[in-house]
Amino acid sequence: MDNQEDNLMDGGVSFAKLDFAREARTGFGETVFCPGKTETQLVAILEAFSKANRPVLCTKCSAGQFHAVKNAGLFVEYDEVSRILISVWAKPPSLSGSVAVCTGGTADVPVAEEAARTASFFGAAVQRQYDVGVAGLHRLLGRIEEIRKADAVIAVAGMEGALGSVLAGLVEAPVVAVPTSVGYGASFGGVAPLLSMLNSCAEGMTVVNIDNGFGAAAFACRMLRNRMKRERS
Amino acid sequence: MDNQEDNLMDGGVSFAKLDFAREARTGFGETVFCPGKTETQLVAILEAFSKANRPVLCTKCSAGQFHAVKNAGLFVEYDEVSRILISVWAKPPSLSGSVAVCTGGTADVPVAEEAARTASFFGAAVQRQYDVGVAGLHRLLGRIEEIRKADAVIAVAGMEGALGSVLAGLVEAPVVAVPTSVGYGASFGGVAPLLSMLNSCAEGMTVVNIDNGFGAAAFACRMLRNRMKRERS
Amino acid sequence: MDNQEDNLMDGGVSFAKLDFAREARTGFGETVFCPGKTETQLVAILEAFSKANRPVLCTKCSAGQFHAVKNAGLFVEYDEVSRILISVWAKPPSLSGSVAVCTGGTADVPVAEEAARTASFFGAAVQRQYDVGVAGLHRLLGRIEEIRKADAVIAVAGMEGALGSVLAGLVEAPVVAVPTSVGYGASFGGVAPLLSMLNSCAEGMTVVNIDNGFGAAAFACRMLRNRMKRERS
Amino acid sequence: MDNQEDNLMDGGVSFAKLDFAREARTGFGETVFCPGKTETQLVAILEAFSKANRPVLCTKCSAGQFHAVKNAGLFVEYDEVSRILISVWAKPPSLSGSVAVCTGGTADVPVAEEAARTASFFGAAVQRQYDVGVAGLHRLLGRIEEIRKADAVIAVAGMEGALGSVLAGLVEAPVVAVPTSVGYGASFGGVAPLLSMLNSCAEGMTVVNIDNGFGAAAFACRMLRNRMKRERS
Amino acid sequence: MDNQEDNLMDGGVSFAKLDFAREARTGFGETVFCPGKTETQLVAILEAFSKANRPVLCTKCSAGQFHAVKNAGLFVEYDEVSRILISVWAKPPSLSGSVAVCTGGTADVPVAEEAARTASFFGAAVQRQYDVGVAGLHRLLGRIEEIRKADAVIAVAGMEGALGSVLAGLVEAPVVAVPTSVGYGASFGGVAPLLSMLNSCAEGMTVVNIDNGFGAAAFACRMLRNRMKRERS
Amino acid sequence: MDNQEDNLMDGGVSFAKLDFAREARTGFGETVFCPGKTETQLVAILEAFSKANRPVLCTKCSAGQFHAVKNAGLFVEYDEVSRILISVWAKPPSLSGSVAVCTGGTADVPVAEEAARTASFFGAAVQRQYDVGVAGLHRLLGRIEEIRKADAVIAVAGMEGALGSVLAGLVEAPVVAVPTSVGYGASFGGVAPLLSMLNSCAEGMTVVNIDNGFGAAAFACRMLRNRMKRERS
Amino acid sequence: MDNQEDNLMDGGVSFAKLDFAREARTGFGETVFCPGKTETQLVAILEAFSKANRPVLCTKCSAGQFHAVKNAGLFVEYDEVSRILISVWAKPPSLSGSVAVCTGGTADVPVAEEAARTASFFGAAVQRQYDVGVAGLHRLLGRIEEIRKADAVIAVAGMEGALGSVLAGLVEAPVVAVPTSVGYGASFGGVAPLLSMLNSCAEGMTVVNIDNGFGAAAFACRMLRNRMKRERS
Amino acid sequence: MDNQEDNLMDGGVSFAKLDFAREARTGFGETVFCPGKTETQLVAILEAFSKANRPVLCTKCSAGQFHAVKNAGLFVEYDEVSRILISVWAKPPSLSGSVAVCTGGTADVPVAEEAARTASFFGAAVQRQYDVGVAGLHRLLGRIEEIRKADAVIAVAGMEGALGSVLAGLVEAPVVAVPTSVGYGASFGGVAPLLSMLNSCAEGMTVVNIDNGFGAAAFACRMLRNRMKRERS
Repeated sequence: MDNQEDNLMDGGVSFAKLDFAREARTGFGETVFCPGKTETQLVAILEAFSKANRPVLCTKCSAGQFHAVKNAGLFVEYDEVSRILISVWAKPPSLSGSVAVCTGGTADVPVAEEAARTASFFGAAVQRQYDVGVAGLHRLLGRIEEIRKADAVIAVAGMEGALGSVLAGLVEAPVVAVPTSVGYGASFGGVAPLLSMLNSCAEGMTVVNIDNGFGAAAFACRMLRNRMKRERS
Repeated sequence: MDNQEDNLMDGGVSFAKLDFAREARTGFGETVFCPGKTETQLVAILEAFSKANRPVLCTKCSAGQFHAVKNAGLFVEYDEVSRILISVWAKPPSLSGSVAVCTGGTADVPVAEEAARTASFFGAAVQRQYDVGVAGLHRLLGRIEEIRKADAVIAVAGMEGALGSVLAGLVEAPVVAVPTSVGYGASFGGVAPLLSMLNSCAEGMTVVNIDNGFGAAAFACRMLRNRMKRERS
Repeated sequence: MDNQEDNLMDGGVSFAKLDFAREARTGFGETVFCPGKTETQLVAILEAFSKANRPVLCTKCSAGQFHAVKNAGLFVEYDEVSRILISVWAKPPSLSGSVAVCTGGTADVPVAEEAARTASFFGAAVQRQYDVGVAGLHRLLGRIEEIRKADAVIAVAGMEGALGSVLAGLVEAPVVAVPTSVGYGASFGGVAPLLSMLNSCAEGMTVVNIDNGFGAAAFACRMLRNRMKRERS
Repeated sequence: MDNQEDNLMDGGVSFAKLDFAREARTGFGETVFCPGKTETQLVAILEAFSKANRPVLCTKCSAGQFHAVKNAGLFVEYDEVSRILISVWAKPPSLSGSVAVCTGGTADVPVAEEAARTASFFGAAVQRQYDVGVAGLHRLLGRIEEIRKADAVIAVAGMEGALGSVLAGLVEAPVVAVPTSVGYGASFGGVAPLLSMLNSCAEGMTVVNIDNGFGAAAFACRMLRNRMKRERS
Repeated sequence: MDNQEDNLMDGGVSFAKLDFAREARTGFGETVFCPGKTETQLVAILEAFSKANRPVLCTKCSAGQFHAVKNAGLFVEYDEVSRILISVWAKPPSLSGSVAVCTGGTADVPVAEEAARTASFFGAAVQRQYDVGVAGLHRLLGRIEEIRKADAVIAVAGMEGALGSVLAGLVEAPVVAVPTSVGYGASFGGVAPLLSMLNSCAEGMTVVNIDNGFGAAAFACRMLRNRMKRERS
Repeated sequence: MDNQEDNLMDGGVSFAKLDFAREARTGFGETVFCPGKTETQLVAILEAFSKANRPVLCTKCSAGQFHAVKNAGLFVEYDEVSRILISVWAKPPSLSGSVAVCTGGTADVPVAEEAARTASFFGAAVQRQYDVGVAGLHRLLGRIEEIRKADAVIAVAGMEGALGSVLAGLVEAPVVAVPTSVGYGASFGGVAPLLSMLNSCAEGMTVVNIDNGFGAAAFACRMLRNRMKRERS
Repeated sequence: MDNQEDNLMDGGVSFAKLDFAREARTGFGETVFCPGKTETQLVAILEAFSKANRPVLCTKCSAGQFHAVKNAGLFVEYDEVSRILISVWAKPPSLSGSVAVCTGGTADVPVAEEAARTASFFGAAVQRQYDVGVAGLHRLLGRIEEIRKADAVIAVAGMEGALGSVLAGLVEAPVVAVPTSVGYGASFGGVAPLLSMLNSCAEGMTVVNIDNGFGAAAFACRMLRNRMKRERS
Repeated sequence: MDNQEDNLMDGGVSFAKLDFAREARTGFGETVFCPGKTETQLVAILEAFSKANRPVLCTKCSAGQFHAVKNAGLFVEYDEVSRILISVWAKPPSLSGSVAVCTGGTADVPVAEEAARTASFFGAAVQRQYDVGVAGLHRLLGRIEEIRKADAVIAVAGMEGALGSVLAGLVEAPVVAVPTSVGYGASFGGVAPLLSMLNSCAEGMTVVNIDNGFGAAAFACRMLRNRMKRERS
């Protein structure tokens, strides 16, 4: 039991409860949301996972947080664009199935990379289809056969956020749409594509929070794992 | 001067100032926005135009308002779907050029008809392309050659409002997008397609108010008239 | 080809383009969103499907629309609570797999029934778990073993909308959350649970529009069908 | 009377009116909201309290403001995490009763510490239960017996803000919910948990402003003091 | 066990799970939120409580719902103003302590009566102080001595919602503020007083949802009961 | 003292506190905001004023409320357009000075009439300038000399709400702007003109609530009365 | 004419049109809104006024802008708190009458000083009453006699913004309310007090934009000037 | 084909798909939206256009991005005010016709310059009319004859955004309105002028996103090009 949960303390205050049994129970490594955590707290959390030899993925990790982790002597990989930090001390399990991550434009790439790297960490094969927005349909139509091969599609788009609707009409796999905060003015930090995606007239699409590439990938991988589990049973 | 302006009174209160010189000055007939006007006021306004023999178009006219006008013995045409009421006592001038009015779905037709009938009243040729939304791209692509023949394109769409962006990428004519209040939940009465259209990554598109089919058509016809005027000069 | 698409006309205006090939192509029957359609339009659409012998599901159908359809002599089933209308002239295909539809309270039942009846129409087995909201956790915990048997979970909740987060932490299947407009005051017609669900700290959950039980079920069934297709290949 | 109120001046302008009789009248020390006050003003206010030998608590005090106070030679304690600054020149009165401060995650700790330190300053016993969010119910259920011992419960949560509803269903003490601005995207700076908490279907819970740990603790202590007063009478 | 929970069915669907053990466990009778429930469902729920001889309070009950309940032969009291319906078949327990319910204006009375009748149902003594808004301070100051006698104060106000802040500065008891949807224009259905109350600079006040008189009273009574329980222990 | 305040009761509940000394103290008659008051309450309030022989003005009075008052035998005047009801049993005091009430369009007349009739009730001379919106500047410029004669200007406008800014640049008198809920779509019930007016780049203009013609007139008359008072002193 | 208007150029672009005749025409000096202007533009504008010997007041002037102006050798006074910059080369005209500027708290002082300094620049006598918020009514009541002596009252308040309503009920002079962006969380940058003030149930109050101390003072001085003008006529 | 599209790679990831055939197809040079692109990506994109000898316009380009481009040895022009960066390696095609760019104030100049420089890049003649806002109508009326000579009018305004409505009533050319984020408080980053413009009661005006000078000019030039094309055909 002791190695299944850890209660971290800082200055006499218990600030986090870690769940080491999660991987065995769910088949997925642990994940940490970095914003709002002090560098001290983040290092303590990662040290605990390292000691327990559990894989861990950190999202929205700032450069400062990464350097604190690195300076603490922990072995991690960090991607500046997506701000994803991944432990290298333990190999996460793999999944059968693939996820296509598509973006409307180049500016959506950081969120798309968060999705792509999360899906990889959770064990899925990943294909990237970036800059295929609907204002130049020929770019999307040129890639659609490849996208159709994926078991799940993640549509990452800011501005008018129409990529998801068009994709859901063109593929048979489930589509998870991720609005991004790319844009200005009446984009309102991603509200425009969020509303656009929620109101899609296309069937077979659901939505996650603005800039939540992680959440889309975690959901897609849960679909894949659930399928594996049923296939085995 | 007297026949160029009329100051209507009701119960000692002057509630409207009519502009009979408008047609001569701008080439367009007069238009009246009906909501908030009493039946008495609307009848008085139309009687004044009838006496002056000027064409007039009324928008968002309720069935009750129409019946009051009809019962007053005025000769008008009324379309229930678009709530457009048009005088038949004077023939409005015509324009050279055509406008394509497109909708995402069937539920957008009332707003599209407001646009189409306004454009006709202002003298333009009109083509209608309804139910060509982006969730089933084949429907739109099957009509695109015909739409490309128009001098101006009006894209009417509720829900995610992506029709305008896709159209603006496929045609060379200017595109005016009209968000509609069709939808529910996070559509927020048309806010979702409005934001989507304002944030379009497509070039060559502008936007009017939610459900403002009239405004889109009036703008399109101003473009056509401006062109005619320059061609003549 | 002719029997794969139908272009419906009303008063010289083409208001809808029907897609009869959809079922063969996607494995799902056609669906119609009723709001904003006139009774004449809806009857014409259903008559066309009836003639083509294709199954069709209508969502958010008003009692008035249902009576118009019934009076036109079409054979349909109508559920007042969910406002779902289903054709009985053709048997839709079935899916292997099951969907659990859960609600926070009794007032969420109409949206849940929209989801449940849609999932049934699309061929899934459905289990209903209503009135298991988080303010009385014992009710939810008493049902959790049964819910865990489902291949997909739909969490329908208004008010604070926390049901989805709690469920996603308790089951392994993908969870689709549906915010409902149940509530008053600062619920803002469902905005409160919508935001709550979008910001969930639980992994493995996505969101659809407020009151969109149909969309959640359509997505869940796309997951099931996609799995079947892969299993066969 | 002179020592019960002080009218502070800066550059000929009276910018603050201090109330030294407050402690005697209400049983609570004075509190100062720091944002928007210049360092000069804050130092002047604290010097006045120091001279009058009254305890004072400052909220949302920036590091810069703290250093200005320290450099002025005033004896204070400062907590960086919660940005609480407390005078050490006078001992505030104590209360009988205890407050449990709970958080959904680690990132909510700054607001929780504002609540916990305020409750201590006002004389209550405090228990801290951090990182017990609803996406992992076992963590909360493992602590619930201890939480039930408190006279008042403060539920601090960002993201979906469901902690308060679940707690209010599990304990008998009054629950004050504090939404936090932890999150991103459609969290809108804490609007999501605020709305979630206002719409809770749980009885026995009220809400304070986003990030207002101070206000929750002040209210809880007013409950405790009111009880003491009634017990004595 | 059987008489502690009841699972109500309608047309083969279980739509509600009743909790008869609640009164014994919490000291409070059961409550039912009526909007969104069909008349059939509400009658079934009340019949179950009647059979189990448990007291029950229904909030926001429409006149139609009341008549359905009455026609089913159930013995209840109904107040049109507050839309509160109360069972008369069982006497709810009483509390020691009193609640003052205050309103800014006459139009706030329906929400205030919801609070007052709920507090009475839960066993508290209630004093009513209506139409004492801050734009005419003399009215409030004339009543303040009486209000100070209460153990808890509920401040019900629409428009600018300032009553709570002023009251919290004048009394020592905890103040629960209830914003009301009274007003028009930029009141936005109660958002104006809600924000005003959340941003109060007064200590010792918390807030509930717009028009949630019930919630304020339920919280106040939880405070009183919690005090009783501690006094006995 | 007794005849200076009256405490009205209904069913044992005191629902209103009347202030008969107001006229003597402020120089203005009493005013009543009708929404949210039952017919019984409104009649009781007006009967009390009638007995006390005090003038009273009621705003936003529904036709139903008016008929209840009339059927109770009270002598009042009612204007359907502005929904203003005025007592005829007592003559209110008069002011020296005049107010110009201007509107952008005909649909703004109801709010303008609320302002105009309120200003008359409070004793000011009133000039009406309706339908002088900025999209046809010649109409406004044709009236500007007359408007300049007024001591205060009230600018009533919906839609883009630009009338106030233009007026404030053309006259020297203080301008009070009243946004109206006239419009549709992105007008959001008057939010568009409200924001427009609050952001005016014109000096010498302030704003009242959406549709609050009463408030603008009450403010204008306070300006006039204050001037009279100073002139006499 | 030449010295009545100046058309400023920068890099071949005319960026500003100055109005030197304004003082003669309106009795007020010119004012400049600084945000969005480059330092070069601001210096050019002030140099033109200096050459023309006209008084000028600049609002929301940053420290950087001030230093650019100072380094250009222009004689100005700058107040850091209110960010008001005033020319010293010309004496503005004076007015008869006084303005009371009141604030709820110390943090509102910057906006209040903007109002106070603007009113002084426009020639009014100014009294300051700071930190008299409604949560401690005794502070306000202690100053009310002095405030009643003013010809116009400006109520500056953030948070719940109730100061204006309470003041308008206590004084006879017109009250202009200024919401401030002081606060956090659900203050939404001043929206909370803005809505509170717009929905005030007090008569005789109007509102300006958030943090617009300048606008309130300009309006108050227009009232005073208008009175002077009438007195003379 | 190879030289018509280029697929840019960075670190193994394809982040952009370039369209070199665009100019031939549409008559317009390519445009790049800079925010969200890394300096590496932007340089790679511009190098590709430079090699292909195609003209390119970059919008909202930061100073840092410009320096990266310059340091890479690419020949470009950069305007700090509008943040427009233009290639100098290829001459873009020209259009017949002119565009008038007008602003309400000096602070709107950056957005206006974005429009003016875009229109120039696309080949139109441009006239600039800055600082002609509606609060001082004489400035606008003094320029109106010149503005009437343009084929399209762009109205750039923040604050109340009324410039577009007034212009559309005074000219015959189509008017495209651009709201700007100039302002503070209830401007909400440009929402106030955006709503004002969408609700304009003037005919012949459409709207683009807040601060989208580029979009307005692109649309205006599409109008001009469309006219040329028709004239030739």
